[in-house]
Amino acid sequence: MGIPMAKNLIAAGYHLQVYNRTHSKADELDSAHITKCQTPAEAASGVAIVISILTDDEALRESAVGDHGILKTLQPNAVHISMSTILPETSEKLTQLHEQAGSYYLAAPVFGRPDAARARKLWVCVSGKQQAKDIAKPVLDSLGQGIIDFGETPGGANVIKIAGNFMIMASMEMMAEAYTLAEKNGLNRAQVADFFGSTLFNAPIFQNYGKLIANKDYQPVRFKSELGYKDARLAFKLSQTSSTPMPLVNAVHSRLLSAVAKGWGETDWVEAITRGVSEDAGV
Amino acid sequence: MGIPMAKNLIAAGYHLQVYNRTHSKADELDSAHITKCQTPAEAASGVAIVISILTDDEALRESAVGDHGILKTLQPNAVHISMSTILPETSEKLTQLHEQAGSYYLAAPVFGRPDAARARKLWVCVSGKQQAKDIAKPVLDSLGQGIIDFGETPGGANVIKIAGNFMIMASMEMMAEAYTLAEKNGLNRAQVADFFGSTLFNAPIFQNYGKLIANKDYQPVRFKSELGYKDARLAFKLSQTSSTPMPLVNAVHSRLLSAVAKGWGETDWVEAITRGVSEDAGV
Repeated sequence: MGIPMAKNLIAAGYHLQVYNRTHSKADELDSAHITKCQTPAEAASGVAIVISILTDDEALRESAVGDHGILKTLQPNAVHISMSTILPETSEKLTQLHEQAGSYYLAAPVFGRPDAARARKLWVCVSGKQQAKDIAKPVLDSLGQGIIDFGETPGGANVIKIAGNFMIMASMEMMAEAYTLAEKNGLNRAQVADFFGSTLFNAPIFQNYGKLIANKDYQPVRFKSELGYKDARLAFKLSQTSSTPMPLVNAVHSRLLSAVAKGWGETDWVEAITRGVSEDAGV
Repeated sequence: MGIPMAKNLIAAGYHLQVYNRTHSKADELDSAHITKCQTPAEAASGVAIVISILTDDEALRESAVGDHGILKTLQPNAVHISMSTILPETSEKLTQLHEQAGSYYLAAPVFGRPDAARARKLWVCVSGKQQAKDIAKPVLDSLGQGIIDFGETPGGANVIKIAGNFMIMASMEMMAEAYTLAEKNGLNRAQVADFFGSTLFNAPIFQNYGKLIANKDYQPVRFKSELGYKDARLAFKLSQTSSTPMPLVNAVHSRLLSAVAKGWGETDWVEAITRGVSEDAGV
Protein backbone atom coordinates (compact mmCIF):
# COMPACT_ATOMS: atom_id res chain seq x y z
CA MET A 1 0.00 0.00 0.00
CA GLY A 2 2.88 2.37 0.74
CA ILE A 3 4.17 2.70 -2.83
CA PRO A 4 0.96 3.88 -4.58
CA MET A 5 0.21 6.28 -1.73
CA ALA A 6 3.78 7.69 -1.86
CA LYS A 7 3.42 8.18 -5.62
CA ASN A 8 0.21 10.16 -5.13
CA LEU A 9 1.87 12.33 -2.49
CA ILE A 10 4.75 13.04 -4.86
CA ALA A 11 2.24 13.85 -7.64
CA ALA A 12 0.60 16.30 -5.23
CA GLY A 13 3.94 18.11 -4.87
CA TYR A 14 5.25 16.74 -1.57
CA HIS A 15 8.86 15.81 -0.91
CA LEU A 16 9.04 12.57 1.10
CA GLN A 17 11.46 11.18 3.65
CA VAL A 18 10.84 7.47 3.24
CA TYR A 19 11.60 4.48 5.40
CA ASN A 20 10.71 0.81 4.90
CA ARG A 21 12.13 -2.26 6.62
CA THR A 22 12.98 -3.45 3.09
CA HIS A 23 15.00 -0.45 1.91
CA SER A 24 14.89 -1.42 -1.76
CA LYS A 25 11.13 -0.72 -1.85
CA ALA A 26 11.97 2.98 -2.22
CA ASP A 27 13.61 2.27 -5.59
CA GLU A 28 10.11 2.29 -7.11
CA LEU A 29 9.80 6.00 -6.30
CA ASP A 30 11.20 8.97 -8.25
CA SER A 31 14.50 9.69 -6.48
CA ALA A 32 14.21 13.43 -7.20
CA HIS A 33 11.31 13.69 -4.78
CA ILE A 34 12.39 11.46 -1.92
CA THR A 35 15.07 11.17 0.71
CA LYS A 36 15.81 7.59 1.73
CA CYS A 37 16.06 7.12 5.49
CA GLN A 38 17.60 4.37 7.61
CA THR A 39 15.18 4.51 10.54
CA PRO A 40 11.66 5.75 11.39
CA ALA A 41 13.29 8.43 13.55
CA GLU A 42 15.28 9.73 10.60
CA ALA A 43 12.14 9.79 8.40
CA ALA A 44 10.25 11.73 11.06
CA SER A 45 12.98 14.28 11.58
CA GLY A 46 12.10 17.90 10.73
CA VAL A 47 8.74 17.22 9.08
CA ALA A 48 5.21 18.53 9.73
CA ILE A 49 3.54 15.20 8.97
CA VAL A 50 4.53 11.55 9.31
CA ILE A 51 2.45 8.76 7.75
CA SER A 52 2.86 5.20 9.03
CA ILE A 53 1.26 2.07 7.58
CA LEU A 54 2.46 -1.14 9.20
CA THR A 55 1.53 -4.79 9.62
CA ASP A 56 0.30 -4.83 13.19
CA ASP A 57 0.15 -3.19 16.62
CA GLU A 58 3.59 -4.38 17.62
CA ALA A 59 5.27 -3.09 14.45
CA LEU A 60 3.60 0.30 14.92
CA ARG A 61 4.60 0.51 18.60
CA GLU A 62 8.21 -0.32 17.73
CA SER A 63 8.24 2.27 14.91
CA ALA A 64 6.75 4.92 17.16
CA VAL A 65 8.36 4.42 20.55
CA GLY A 66 11.37 2.16 19.80
CA ASP A 67 14.98 3.29 20.10
CA HIS A 68 14.88 4.52 16.50
CA GLY A 69 11.21 5.42 16.57
CA ILE A 70 9.23 8.38 15.30
CA LEU A 71 8.80 9.95 18.74
CA LYS A 72 12.58 10.30 19.09
CA THR A 73 12.56 13.11 16.49
CA LEU A 74 8.97 14.24 15.82
CA GLN A 75 8.82 17.97 16.37
CA PRO A 76 6.13 19.76 18.45
CA ASN A 77 2.79 20.30 16.65
CA ALA A 78 3.70 17.76 13.96
CA VAL A 79 1.06 15.10 13.18
CA HIS A 80 1.60 11.35 13.01
CA ILE A 81 -1.06 9.93 10.65
CA SER A 82 -1.40 6.28 11.66
CA MET A 83 -2.99 4.16 8.90
CA SER A 84 -2.31 0.66 10.23
CA THR A 85 -5.12 -1.76 11.10
CA ILE A 86 -4.69 -1.96 14.87
CA LEU A 87 -6.65 -2.14 18.12
CA PRO A 88 -8.18 1.11 19.41
CA GLU A 89 -6.26 0.67 22.69
CA THR A 90 -2.99 1.05 20.77
CA SER A 91 -4.22 4.39 19.40
CA GLU A 92 -5.21 5.42 22.95
CA LYS A 93 -1.71 4.74 24.26
CA LEU A 94 0.09 6.36 21.33
CA THR A 95 -2.14 9.43 21.57
CA GLN A 96 -0.99 9.92 25.18
CA LEU A 97 2.66 9.47 24.26
CA HIS A 98 2.42 11.97 21.39
CA GLU A 99 0.64 14.47 23.64
CA GLN A 100 3.47 14.18 26.15
CA ALA A 101 5.91 15.00 23.34
CA GLY A 102 3.78 17.97 22.20
CA SER A 103 2.84 16.33 18.88
CA TYR A 104 -0.38 14.83 17.54
CA TYR A 105 -1.39 11.24 16.79
CA LEU A 106 -4.24 10.74 14.30
CA ALA A 107 -5.80 7.33 13.67
CA ALA A 108 -6.49 7.20 9.92
CA PRO A 109 -6.95 3.62 8.67
CA VAL A 110 -8.07 3.26 5.05
CA PHE A 111 -10.42 1.00 3.11
CA GLY A 112 -9.33 -0.05 -0.36
CA ARG A 113 -6.77 -2.31 -1.97
CA PRO A 114 -3.53 -1.19 -3.66
CA ASP A 115 -5.37 -0.58 -6.97
CA ALA A 116 -7.76 1.75 -5.12
CA ALA A 117 -4.77 3.51 -3.54
CA ARG A 118 -3.26 3.95 -7.01
CA ALA A 119 -6.51 5.51 -8.28
CA ARG A 120 -6.87 7.78 -5.20
CA LYS A 121 -10.08 5.91 -4.36
CA LEU A 122 -9.29 5.09 -0.74
CA TRP A 123 -11.81 5.83 2.03
CA VAL A 124 -9.95 7.35 4.96
CA CYS A 125 -11.52 7.01 8.42
CA VAL A 126 -10.14 9.42 11.00
CA SER A 127 -10.43 9.90 14.75
CA GLY A 128 -8.56 12.13 17.16
CA LYS A 129 -8.00 15.80 17.91
CA GLN A 130 -9.58 18.37 15.58
CA GLN A 131 -6.28 20.24 15.18
CA ALA A 132 -4.61 17.05 13.95
CA LYS A 133 -7.44 16.51 11.42
CA ASP A 134 -7.08 20.07 10.13
CA ILE A 135 -3.34 19.70 9.62
CA ALA A 136 -3.69 16.27 8.00
CA LYS A 137 -6.57 17.14 5.65
CA PRO A 138 -4.62 18.30 2.53
CA VAL A 139 -2.43 15.21 2.68
CA LEU A 140 -5.39 12.85 3.15
CA ASP A 141 -7.28 14.59 0.33
CA SER A 142 -4.46 13.72 -2.03
CA LEU A 143 -4.72 10.02 -1.10
CA GLY A 144 -8.41 9.17 -1.10
CA GLN A 145 -11.89 9.96 -2.38
CA GLY A 146 -13.31 10.79 1.04
CA ILE A 147 -12.41 11.42 4.68
CA ILE A 148 -14.93 10.22 7.25
CA ASP A 149 -14.69 11.65 10.76
CA PHE A 150 -15.42 9.24 13.61
CA GLY A 151 -14.97 11.68 16.45
CA GLU A 152 -12.35 12.70 18.97
CA THR A 153 -11.92 9.38 20.76
CA PRO A 154 -8.46 8.26 19.56
CA GLY A 155 -9.41 4.69 18.55
CA GLY A 156 -12.81 5.31 16.90
CA ALA A 157 -11.49 4.93 13.37
CA ASN A 158 -9.69 1.72 14.34
CA VAL A 159 -12.99 0.25 15.54
CA ILE A 160 -14.57 1.03 12.15
CA LYS A 161 -11.64 -0.52 10.29
CA ILE A 162 -11.81 -3.72 12.36
CA ALA A 163 -15.61 -3.89 11.97
CA GLY A 164 -15.28 -3.31 8.21
CA ASN A 165 -12.64 -5.98 7.67
CA PHE A 166 -14.80 -8.38 9.67
CA MET A 167 -17.73 -7.53 7.38
CA ILE A 168 -15.60 -8.16 4.28
CA MET A 169 -14.44 -11.54 5.59
CA ALA A 170 -17.96 -12.53 6.69
CA SER A 171 -19.24 -11.52 3.24
CA MET A 172 -16.64 -13.72 1.57
CA GLU A 173 -17.50 -16.65 3.85
CA MET A 174 -21.21 -16.08 3.13
CA MET A 175 -20.63 -16.08 -0.64
CA ALA A 176 -18.36 -19.14 -0.50
CA GLU A 177 -21.02 -21.03 1.48
CA ALA A 178 -23.90 -19.92 -0.76
CA TYR A 179 -22.06 -20.65 -4.02
CA THR A 180 -20.90 -24.05 -2.77
CA LEU A 181 -24.46 -24.89 -1.71
CA ALA A 182 -25.63 -23.87 -5.19
CA GLU A 183 -22.83 -25.83 -6.89
CA LYS A 184 -23.62 -29.00 -4.94
CA ASN A 185 -27.26 -28.60 -5.93
CA GLY A 186 -26.47 -28.47 -9.64
CA LEU A 187 -26.17 -24.73 -10.32
CA ASN A 188 -23.34 -22.81 -11.97
CA ARG A 189 -21.31 -20.80 -9.41
CA ALA A 190 -20.55 -17.99 -11.86
CA GLN A 191 -24.22 -17.53 -12.74
CA VAL A 192 -25.14 -17.43 -9.06
CA ALA A 193 -22.47 -14.80 -8.30
CA ASP A 194 -23.50 -12.77 -11.33
CA PHE A 195 -27.16 -12.82 -10.29
CA PHE A 196 -26.58 -11.69 -6.71
CA GLY A 197 -23.89 -9.17 -7.70
CA SER A 198 -26.23 -7.49 -10.19
CA THR A 199 -29.39 -7.48 -8.05
CA LEU A 200 -29.69 -7.64 -4.24
CA PHE A 201 -25.95 -7.47 -3.59
CA ASN A 202 -24.83 -4.99 -6.27
CA ALA A 203 -21.95 -3.53 -4.25
CA PRO A 204 -18.22 -3.69 -5.11
CA ILE A 205 -17.49 -6.25 -2.37
CA PHE A 206 -19.93 -8.74 -3.84
CA GLN A 207 -19.12 -8.00 -7.47
CA ASN A 208 -15.33 -8.12 -7.17
CA TYR A 209 -14.86 -10.83 -4.55
CA GLY A 210 -17.98 -12.63 -5.84
CA LYS A 211 -16.34 -13.25 -9.20
CA LEU A 212 -13.08 -14.49 -7.63
CA ILE A 213 -14.96 -16.77 -5.23
CA ALA A 214 -17.25 -18.13 -7.95
CA ASN A 215 -14.33 -18.88 -10.30
CA LYS A 216 -12.00 -20.06 -7.51
CA ASP A 217 -9.56 -17.47 -8.90
CA TYR A 218 -6.77 -17.03 -6.36
CA GLN A 219 -4.05 -15.28 -8.39
CA PRO A 220 -2.39 -12.87 -7.99
CA VAL A 221 -2.19 -12.77 -4.18
CA ARG A 222 -3.67 -9.38 -3.24
CA PHE A 223 -4.05 -9.77 0.53
CA LYS A 224 -2.35 -12.61 2.35
CA SER A 225 -4.36 -15.04 4.45
CA GLU A 226 -2.02 -14.52 7.38
CA LEU A 227 -2.97 -10.82 7.33
CA GLY A 228 -6.64 -11.77 7.12
CA TYR A 229 -6.09 -14.03 10.10
CA LYS A 230 -4.51 -11.10 11.94
CA ASP A 231 -7.59 -8.98 11.22
CA ALA A 232 -9.87 -11.80 12.40
CA ARG A 233 -7.85 -11.92 15.62
CA LEU A 234 -8.29 -8.16 16.08
CA ALA A 235 -12.07 -8.49 15.67
CA PHE A 236 -12.09 -11.44 18.07
CA LYS A 237 -10.03 -9.51 20.61
CA LEU A 238 -12.22 -6.41 20.34
CA SER A 239 -15.38 -8.52 20.75
CA GLN A 240 -13.84 -9.94 23.93
CA THR A 241 -12.62 -6.67 25.45
CA SER A 242 -15.98 -5.00 24.78
CA SER A 243 -18.07 -8.07 25.78
CA THR A 244 -19.79 -8.37 22.43
CA PRO A 245 -20.59 -11.99 21.50
CA MET A 246 -20.22 -12.27 17.69
CA PRO A 247 -20.94 -15.72 16.24
CA LEU A 248 -19.85 -14.63 12.75
CA VAL A 249 -16.52 -13.36 14.06
CA ASN A 250 -16.01 -16.79 15.63
CA ALA A 251 -16.76 -18.42 12.26
CA VAL A 252 -14.37 -16.30 10.18
CA HIS A 253 -11.68 -16.52 12.87
CA SER A 254 -11.88 -20.32 12.73
CA ARG A 255 -11.81 -20.24 8.93
CA LEU A 256 -8.64 -18.13 8.76
CA LEU A 257 -6.96 -19.96 11.63
CA SER A 258 -7.60 -23.22 9.81
CA ALA A 259 -6.11 -21.76 6.63
CA VAL A 260 -2.93 -20.85 8.49
CA ALA A 261 -2.90 -24.31 10.09
CA LYS A 262 -3.08 -25.89 6.62
CA GLY A 263 -0.07 -23.87 5.49
CA TRP A 264 -2.05 -21.41 3.35
CA GLY A 265 -0.78 -18.30 5.16
CA GLU A 266 0.90 -16.90 2.04
CA THR A 267 -2.13 -17.45 -0.21
CA ASP A 268 -4.79 -14.82 -0.91
CA TRP A 269 -7.52 -14.61 1.73
CA VAL A 270 -10.04 -15.38 -1.02
CA GLU A 271 -8.32 -18.76 -1.35
CA ALA A 272 -8.27 -19.37 2.41
CA ILE A 273 -12.01 -18.87 2.66
CA THR A 274 -13.22 -20.28 -0.68
CA ARG A 275 -10.99 -23.35 -0.65
CA GLY A 276 -11.74 -23.91 3.03
CA VAL A 277 -15.50 -24.02 2.39
CA SER A 278 -15.07 -26.24 -0.68
CA GLU A 279 -12.74 -28.70 1.05
CA ASP A 280 -15.11 -28.94 4.01
CA ALA A 281 -17.81 -29.89 1.52
CA GLY A 282 -15.60 -32.45 -0.24
CA VAL A 283 -15.36 -30.53 -3.51
CA MET B 1 -47.27 -10.56 -1.43
CA GLY B 2 -50.38 -11.85 -3.22
CA ILE B 3 -52.34 -8.60 -3.24
CA PRO B 4 -49.80 -6.30 -4.95
CA MET B 5 -49.03 -8.99 -7.51
CA ALA B 6 -52.74 -9.54 -8.22
CA LYS B 7 -53.19 -5.78 -8.70
CA ASN B 8 -50.37 -5.70 -11.25
CA LEU B 9 -51.89 -8.64 -13.13
CA ILE B 10 -55.26 -6.83 -13.23
CA ALA B 11 -53.50 -3.67 -14.43
CA ALA B 12 -51.93 -5.76 -17.21
CA GLY B 13 -55.43 -6.76 -18.36
CA TYR B 14 -55.81 -10.21 -16.83
CA HIS B 15 -59.01 -11.53 -15.25
CA LEU B 16 -58.20 -13.49 -12.10
CA GLN B 17 -59.79 -16.44 -10.32
CA VAL B 18 -58.57 -15.86 -6.80
CA TYR B 19 -58.31 -18.08 -3.76
CA ASN B 20 -56.85 -17.37 -0.32
CA ARG B 21 -57.31 -19.28 2.94
CA THR B 22 -58.57 -15.97 4.35
CA HIS B 23 -61.31 -15.22 1.81
CA SER B 24 -61.71 -11.57 2.81
CA LYS B 25 -58.23 -10.81 1.41
CA ALA B 26 -59.81 -10.65 -2.06
CA ASP B 27 -61.89 -7.63 -0.97
CA GLU B 28 -58.79 -5.49 -1.60
CA LEU B 29 -59.04 -6.28 -5.33
CA ASP B 30 -61.31 -4.67 -7.94
CA SER B 31 -64.30 -7.03 -8.06
CA ALA B 32 -64.89 -6.31 -11.77
CA HIS B 33 -61.67 -8.15 -12.62
CA ILE B 34 -61.77 -11.13 -10.30
CA THR B 35 -63.84 -14.21 -9.57
CA LYS B 36 -63.66 -15.31 -5.93
CA CYS B 37 -63.10 -19.02 -5.50
CA GLN B 38 -63.66 -21.35 -2.56
CA THR B 39 -60.82 -23.80 -3.23
CA PRO B 40 -57.51 -23.98 -5.12
CA ALA B 41 -59.20 -26.48 -7.49
CA GLU B 42 -61.91 -23.95 -8.34
CA ALA B 43 -59.31 -21.21 -8.92
CA ALA B 44 -57.32 -23.49 -11.25
CA SER B 45 -60.36 -24.54 -13.27
CA GLY B 46 -60.38 -23.59 -16.96
CA VAL B 47 -57.30 -21.34 -16.88
CA ALA B 48 -54.06 -21.34 -18.85
CA ILE B 49 -51.93 -20.23 -15.89
CA VAL B 50 -52.11 -20.70 -12.12
CA ILE B 51 -49.86 -18.75 -9.75
CA SER B 52 -49.33 -20.02 -6.21
CA ILE B 53 -47.48 -18.27 -3.39
CA LEU B 54 -47.72 -20.03 -0.04
CA THR B 55 -46.04 -20.23 3.34
CA ASP B 56 -44.18 -23.51 3.05
CA ASP B 57 -43.70 -26.86 1.34
CA GLU B 58 -46.62 -28.49 3.15
CA ALA B 59 -49.09 -25.71 2.28
CA LEU B 60 -48.03 -25.91 -1.36
CA ARG B 61 -48.33 -29.69 -1.47
CA GLU B 62 -51.82 -29.51 0.04
CA SER B 63 -52.89 -26.77 -2.42
CA ALA B 64 -51.53 -28.74 -5.37
CA VAL B 65 -52.36 -32.37 -4.63
CA GLY B 66 -54.98 -32.16 -1.84
CA ASP B 67 -58.63 -33.15 -2.27
CA HIS B 68 -59.43 -29.59 -3.41
CA GLY B 69 -56.03 -29.00 -4.98
CA ILE B 70 -54.92 -27.43 -8.25
CA LEU B 71 -54.17 -30.74 -9.95
CA LYS B 72 -57.82 -31.79 -9.60
CA THR B 73 -58.81 -29.28 -12.30
CA LEU B 74 -55.70 -27.95 -14.06
CA GLN B 75 -56.15 -28.52 -17.78
CA PRO B 76 -53.52 -30.07 -20.09
CA ASN B 77 -50.75 -27.70 -21.19
CA ALA B 78 -51.64 -25.19 -18.47
CA VAL B 79 -48.73 -23.90 -16.35
CA HIS B 80 -48.56 -23.80 -12.56
CA ILE B 81 -46.17 -20.96 -11.63
CA SER B 82 -44.95 -21.83 -8.14
CA MET B 83 -43.56 -18.80 -6.29
CA SER B 84 -43.27 -20.18 -2.75
CA THR B 85 -39.93 -20.47 -0.93
CA ILE B 86 -39.62 -24.26 -0.75
CA LEU B 87 -37.07 -27.08 -1.01
CA PRO B 88 -35.98 -28.10 -4.51
CA GLU B 89 -37.14 -31.67 -3.80
CA THR B 90 -40.72 -30.40 -3.49
CA SER B 91 -40.44 -28.88 -6.98
CA GLU B 92 -39.02 -32.18 -8.26
CA LYS B 93 -42.03 -34.13 -6.96
CA LEU B 94 -44.61 -31.61 -8.14
CA THR B 95 -43.00 -31.47 -11.58
CA GLN B 96 -43.51 -35.23 -11.92
CA LEU B 97 -47.15 -35.02 -10.77
CA HIS B 98 -47.90 -32.17 -13.20
CA GLU B 99 -46.27 -34.09 -16.05
CA GLN B 100 -48.47 -37.09 -15.28
CA ALA B 101 -51.50 -34.76 -15.56
CA GLY B 102 -50.24 -33.31 -18.85
CA SER B 103 -49.64 -29.86 -17.36
CA TYR B 104 -46.48 -27.91 -16.45
CA TYR B 105 -44.96 -26.93 -13.12
CA LEU B 106 -42.59 -23.95 -13.11
CA ALA B 107 -40.54 -23.00 -10.04
CA ALA B 108 -40.56 -19.17 -9.95
CA PRO B 109 -39.66 -17.81 -6.50
CA VAL B 110 -39.19 -14.06 -6.28
CA PHE B 111 -36.84 -11.69 -4.48
CA GLY B 112 -38.37 -8.48 -3.17
CA ARG B 113 -40.68 -7.35 -0.39
CA PRO B 114 -44.34 -6.30 -0.86
CA ASP B 115 -43.31 -2.72 -1.74
CA ALA B 116 -41.09 -4.11 -4.51
CA ALA B 117 -44.01 -6.26 -5.69
CA ARG B 118 -46.20 -3.14 -5.79
CA ALA B 119 -43.62 -1.28 -7.88
CA ARG B 120 -43.12 -4.28 -10.25
CA LYS B 121 -39.52 -4.46 -9.05
CA LEU B 122 -39.43 -8.17 -8.18
CA TRP B 123 -36.64 -10.39 -9.44
CA VAL B 124 -38.17 -13.66 -10.66
CA CYS B 125 -35.94 -16.75 -10.70
CA VAL B 126 -37.26 -19.59 -12.86
CA SER B 127 -36.34 -23.23 -13.46
CA GLY B 128 -38.16 -25.97 -15.35
CA LYS B 129 -39.26 -26.88 -18.87
CA GLN B 130 -38.66 -24.32 -21.65
CA GLN B 131 -42.28 -24.57 -22.85
CA ALA B 132 -43.50 -23.62 -19.36
CA LYS B 133 -41.14 -20.61 -19.32
CA ASP B 134 -42.39 -19.45 -22.71
CA ILE B 135 -46.03 -19.64 -21.63
CA ALA B 136 -45.34 -17.93 -18.28
CA LYS B 137 -43.18 -15.11 -19.65
CA PRO B 138 -45.84 -12.43 -20.33
CA VAL B 139 -47.34 -12.93 -16.87
CA LEU B 140 -43.96 -12.82 -15.14
CA ASP B 141 -42.98 -9.72 -17.14
CA SER B 142 -45.99 -7.92 -15.69
CA LEU B 143 -44.85 -8.75 -12.13
CA GLY B 144 -41.12 -8.03 -12.01
CA GLN B 145 -38.17 -6.13 -13.41
CA GLY B 146 -36.34 -9.23 -14.59
CA ILE B 147 -36.63 -12.99 -15.12
CA ILE B 148 -33.49 -15.02 -14.48
CA ASP B 149 -33.35 -18.52 -15.91
CA PHE B 150 -31.64 -21.15 -13.74
CA GLY B 151 -32.03 -24.06 -16.15
CA GLU B 152 -34.28 -27.06 -16.69
CA THR B 153 -33.72 -28.84 -13.37
CA PRO B 154 -37.05 -28.28 -11.58
CA GLY B 155 -35.65 -27.06 -8.25
CA GLY B 156 -32.80 -24.83 -9.47
CA ALA B 157 -34.66 -21.60 -8.77
CA ASN B 158 -35.59 -22.85 -5.29
CA VAL B 159 -31.90 -23.38 -4.51
CA ILE B 160 -31.17 -19.77 -5.50
CA LYS B 161 -34.04 -18.48 -3.38
CA ILE B 162 -32.87 -20.43 -0.32
CA ALA B 163 -29.26 -19.32 -0.88
CA GLY B 164 -30.40 -15.71 -1.29
CA ASN B 165 -32.53 -15.64 1.84
CA PHE B 166 -29.62 -17.15 3.75
CA MET B 167 -27.39 -14.36 2.40
CA ILE B 168 -29.90 -11.72 3.49
CA MET B 169 -30.12 -13.16 7.01
CA ALA B 170 -26.34 -13.57 7.27
CA SER B 171 -25.94 -9.94 6.12
CA MET B 172 -28.36 -8.78 8.81
CA GLU B 173 -26.53 -10.80 11.48
CA MET B 174 -23.23 -9.39 10.22
CA MET B 175 -24.50 -5.81 10.41
CA ALA B 176 -26.05 -6.33 13.84
CA GLU B 177 -22.76 -7.74 15.15
CA ALA B 178 -20.63 -5.01 13.56
CA TYR B 179 -22.89 -2.16 14.70
CA THR B 180 -23.12 -3.55 18.23
CA LEU B 181 -19.33 -3.89 18.37
CA ALA B 182 -19.06 -0.27 17.21
CA GLU B 183 -21.72 0.88 19.71
CA LYS B 184 -19.98 -0.84 22.61
CA ASN B 185 -16.73 0.84 21.57
CA GLY B 186 -18.23 4.31 21.67
CA LEU B 187 -19.34 4.88 18.07
CA ASN B 188 -22.75 5.93 16.75
CA ARG B 189 -24.60 3.00 15.12
CA ALA B 190 -26.33 5.22 12.55
CA GLN B 191 -23.06 6.78 11.41
CA VAL B 192 -21.49 3.34 11.07
CA ALA B 193 -24.42 2.05 8.97
CA ASP B 194 -24.39 5.18 6.85
CA PHE B 195 -20.65 4.87 6.18
CA PHE B 196 -20.73 1.23 5.12
CA GLY B 197 -23.99 1.64 3.17
CA SER B 198 -22.55 4.51 1.14
CA THR B 199 -19.09 3.03 0.47
CA LEU B 200 -18.05 -0.65 0.50
CA PHE B 201 -21.54 -2.01 1.01
CA ASN B 202 -23.60 0.35 -1.14
CA ALA B 203 -26.26 -2.22 -2.07
CA PRO B 204 -29.98 -2.08 -1.18
CA ILE B 205 -29.70 -4.87 1.41
CA PHE B 206 -27.16 -2.90 3.42
CA GLN B 207 -28.77 0.49 2.92
CA ASN B 208 -32.34 -0.54 3.75
CA TYR B 209 -31.78 -3.15 6.44
CA GLY B 210 -28.70 -1.28 7.64
CA LYS B 211 -30.79 1.72 8.64
CA LEU B 212 -33.39 -0.42 10.44
CA ILE B 213 -30.70 -2.39 12.27
CA ALA B 214 -28.74 0.75 13.24
CA ASN B 215 -31.85 2.51 14.57
CA LYS B 216 -33.37 -0.65 16.12
CA ASP B 217 -36.46 0.22 14.07
CA TYR B 218 -38.75 -2.82 14.11
CA GLN B 219 -42.09 -1.37 12.97
CA PRO B 220 -44.07 -2.13 10.89
CA VAL B 221 -43.56 -5.90 10.76
CA ARG B 222 -42.60 -6.59 7.13
CA PHE B 223 -41.44 -10.20 7.33
CA LYS B 224 -42.17 -12.27 10.41
CA SER B 225 -39.39 -13.91 12.38
CA GLU B 226 -41.20 -17.25 12.25
CA LEU B 227 -40.99 -17.08 8.44
CA GLY B 228 -37.32 -16.15 8.69
CA TYR B 229 -36.85 -19.17 10.93
CA LYS B 230 -38.60 -21.30 8.31
CA ASP B 231 -36.16 -20.04 5.67
CA ALA B 232 -33.20 -20.71 7.98
CA ARG B 233 -34.51 -24.28 8.40
CA LEU B 234 -34.71 -24.69 4.62
CA ALA B 235 -31.10 -23.55 4.25
CA PHE B 236 -30.06 -25.87 7.08
CA LYS B 237 -31.93 -28.80 5.52
CA LEU B 238 -30.46 -28.15 2.07
CA SER B 239 -26.95 -27.93 3.52
CA GLN B 240 -27.56 -31.33 5.13
CA THR B 241 -29.08 -33.08 2.12
CA SER B 242 -26.28 -31.82 -0.13
CA SER B 243 -23.50 -32.37 2.46
CA THR B 244 -22.40 -28.74 2.51
CA PRO B 245 -21.10 -27.61 5.92
CA MET B 246 -22.13 -23.95 6.35
CA PRO B 247 -21.07 -22.33 9.63
CA LEU B 248 -22.97 -19.12 8.84
CA VAL B 249 -26.18 -21.06 8.21
CA ASN B 250 -25.72 -22.65 11.63
CA ALA B 251 -25.34 -19.19 13.16
CA VAL B 252 -28.43 -17.62 11.59
CA HIS B 253 -30.46 -20.77 12.25
CA SER B 254 -29.58 -20.54 15.96
CA ARG B 255 -30.38 -16.82 15.96
CA LEU B 256 -33.88 -17.28 14.50
CA LEU B 257 -34.59 -20.40 16.55
CA SER B 258 -33.70 -18.44 19.68
CA ALA B 259 -36.03 -15.61 18.60
CA VAL B 260 -38.92 -18.07 18.26
CA ALA B 261 -37.98 -19.60 21.64
CA LYS B 262 -38.14 -16.13 23.22
CA GLY B 263 -41.66 -15.61 21.83
CA TRP B 264 -40.61 -13.18 19.08
CA GLY B 265 -42.10 -15.25 16.23
CA GLU B 266 -44.56 -12.52 15.25
CA THR B 267 -41.97 -9.73 15.26
CA ASP B 268 -40.05 -8.59 12.19
CA TRP B 269 -36.96 -10.67 11.40
CA VAL B 270 -34.90 -7.47 11.74
CA GLU B 271 -35.96 -7.41 15.41
CA ALA B 272 -35.19 -11.11 15.91
CA ILE B 273 -31.63 -10.66 14.71
CA THR B 274 -30.84 -7.13 15.94
CA ARG B 275 -32.40 -7.52 19.38
CA GLY B 276 -30.88 -10.99 19.69
CA VAL B 277 -27.36 -9.65 19.11
CA SER B 278 -27.95 -6.68 21.44
CA GLU B 279 -29.37 -8.78 24.26
CA ASP B 280 -26.48 -11.24 23.98
CA ALA B 281 -24.18 -8.26 24.46
CA GLY B 282 -26.15 -6.93 27.42
CA VAL B 283 -27.38 -3.78 25.65
